[in-house]
Amino acid sequence: MPSDSHRTEGFSAAGVAAGLKSSGDPDVAVVVNHGPDDAAAAVFTTNRFPAAPVLWSRQVLVDGRARAVVLNSGGANACTGPEGFADTHATAEQAAAELGMGAIDVAVASTGLIGMRLPMDKLTAGVTDAVKALSEDGGPDAARAIMTTDSVPKTTVQQREGWSVGGMAKGAGMLAPSLATMLVVLTTDAVVDPAVLSTALKQATSVSFERVDSDGCLSTNDTVLVMASGASGVAPSVEEFTEALTAAATDLAMQLLADAEGSTKDIAITVRNAAGVADALTAGRACARNNLLKTALFGNDPNWGRVLAAIGTTDAAFEADQVDVTINGVTVCRGGAIGDPREGVDLTGRAITIDVDLKAGTDEATIWTNDLSITYVHENSAYST
Amino acid sequence: MPSDSHRTEGFSAAGVAAGLKSSGDPDVAVVVNHGPDDAAAAVFTTNRFPAAPVLWSRQVLVDGRARAVVLNSGGANACTGPEGFADTHATAEQAAAELGMGAIDVAVASTGLIGMRLPMDKLTAGVTDAVKALSEDGGPDAARAIMTTDSVPKTTVQQREGWSVGGMAKGAGMLAPSLATMLVVLTTDAVVDPAVLSTALKQATSVSFERVDSDGCLSTNDTVLVMASGASGVAPSVEEFTEALTAAATDLAMQLLADAEGSTKDIAITVRNAAGVADALTAGRACARNNLLKTALFGNDPNWGRVLAAIGTTDAAFEADQVDVTINGVTVCRGGAIGDPREGVDLTGRAITIDVDLKAGTDEATIWTNDLSITYVHENSAYST
Repeated sequence: MPSDSHRTEGFSAAGVAAGLKSSGDPDVAVVVNHGPDDAAAAVFTTNRFPAAPVLWSRQVLVDGRARAVVLNSGGANACTGPEGFADTHATAEQAAAELGMGAIDVAVASTGLIGMRLPMDKLTAGVTDAVKALSEDGGPDAARAIMTTDSVPKTTVQQREGWSVGGMAKGAGMLAPSLATMLVVLTTDAVVDPAVLSTALKQATSVSFERVDSDGCLSTNDTVLVMASGASGVAPSVEEFTEALTAAATDLAMQLLADAEGSTKDIAITVRNAAGVADALTAGRACARNNLLKTALFGNDPNWGRVLAAIGTTDAAFEADQVDVTINGVTVCRGGAIGDPREGVDLTGRAITIDVDLKAGTDEATIWTNDLSITYVHENSAYST
Repeated sequence: MPSDSHRTEGFSAAGVAAGLKSSGDPDVAVVVNHGPDDAAAAVFTTNRFPAAPVLWSRQVLVDGRARAVVLNSGGANACTGPEGFADTHATAEQAAAELGMGAIDVAVASTGLIGMRLPMDKLTAGVTDAVKALSEDGGPDAARAIMTTDSVPKTTVQQREGWSVGGMAKGAGMLAPSLATMLVVLTTDAVVDPAVLSTALKQATSVSFERVDSDGCLSTNDTVLVMASGASGVAPSVEEFTEALTAAATDLAMQLLADAEGSTKDIAITVRNAAGVADALTAGRACARNNLLKTALFGNDPNWGRVLAAIGTTDAAFEADQVDVTINGVTVCRGGAIGDPREGVDLTGRAITIDVDLKAGTDEATIWTNDLSITYVHENSAYST
């Protein structure tokens, strides 16, 4: 579902307003894979309270195939018990009947408040409307219908030689590792085997969505689904396909980061010369989850002591008197002590880079996060009320 | 250093303004143990970037003895390299000379901005002034001198039969497990062996300061020091002494919680029927560190889905369809699904209790935390600038 003149062939999509959101904004989306192939793969939340649509969609994806996905905002259908699962199942059955396929071909994804049943009368009518509205140009409508506190819809298209990868995403908070909290649908018209699709998706998410840690909170509904239609007739190599899928995932992840609830900064924390990638990720995540550091950056304060205090809580390999910290190009900490004057750091822009040199090895990784702003608190204190 | 008519015998204290704080408020404190005993014990931060005074004081406490402590606010002397350590050493040497003891008898504790050298000319003059001002009634002055963003000084006295435990604390944020971030000095006139003092302190902190998790951030300077003068001549049993020390520590921990930066709620998260205390603590801490839950509570929103989403990220033993959540007496979640109406929960007061029933065993534990407020963000974004 590209947002420009390119199109990922073999798909149709739609987004409609069904009244799930009190605002009256679009809230039900359907994306259909018209084939000829129906390969699919997905990555779901690791939260131990997976929402009903996650439980259902896991079953759909077991055989590496899916032909459609129904998505709704305005309610997560999480922590709703057997009744909530029955609601998801009924949604898949209904969409399948209207689309002329089996329910087990239809994935479901939901987002919104946890612990509330969906108004099934409204959802049922919305699914019918969305199926009627399906169009090859419906991607942007679908992207709008899955928004919650997002301020803009997020779409991507990666055009390659005769084939492409498209995608849409929602998510503007609860972005955490082992999935940013979000719904993502990726589509490709390449010819891709289900096993390759699954491997490529794991690789793409591991370096994109899983490295965005906006507020450390892991949702119950995270879903990244990819469907391959094969409509282009082109079968790229595993490497070519993985590259394009990773590019699409990274593009969407950066859009999620830029739109994180109430954020004023996009912060890239790169940990260099670590004893392993795992150490670099651990140290980077400790910074990304440190509220004192995140509030300091909101206040344009290059408070590097809070970087050290954060990585000082981890078990990453380093010697305390060896660590350097560079913020927006100024090495404010050398050897775990005072470096160049912090007054030289310009934090007035949105982009902030924090480089931590552990001097303990040769590996590195980057974690992306946001600042902790007054607007974040305001938005999240008022979400369900 | 009691704040009322009771007094822990054998100690003197003082607090003076030395100009370390730009506000001109008191910022240097000295507490002296006049004996006859000089037993002492301490617990320090586990942060891997321990501040210079932590490195020094660890050495002082190696033999289970200390006769005085110098404390300063207005600068943490953390991440200041060998020069910072030399500053701490010089402070201990100076105080020891003026008090007529050895430098190795003098602990040092500092709090304030990380990554900045202390202005030693001002600190030196302050230590001299504080030593001159020492008084048996100086405890309240000392408690004021160690404040940073605290809005009130924190003191306690636990009177027992012929002996007592007193204490003072500072800390109003960066409260995290394996120490709330803070400085605490506890005194007792009981006759206590250094080994018993150490064991009792570990026990007291494990159920008080270590269970307060205000914002999940662990500082570089945390210090809890206890000194025993033996001046009462009374030697309580190990159990009696541990009980009184725990009461003093718990009283101070609750004062720290109540004064946490910008907080509007004191939240007690009790996890019941866990498979072990460790599981209960893990689940409780996951809630205490979940920014989405903490902002919801700031907004008086009983968003119990965020409780489940938080504990769903842990490895604590439970079945997702068994967990109950009760907020301020209303069981809003039963069996991992919708319970009583959330509209029945009154969150308008400062005290909030969240009870999570894991139904996985017989152990329980309580973690105390605060909400995440707009004022928290404001205060911490403006701290060093």
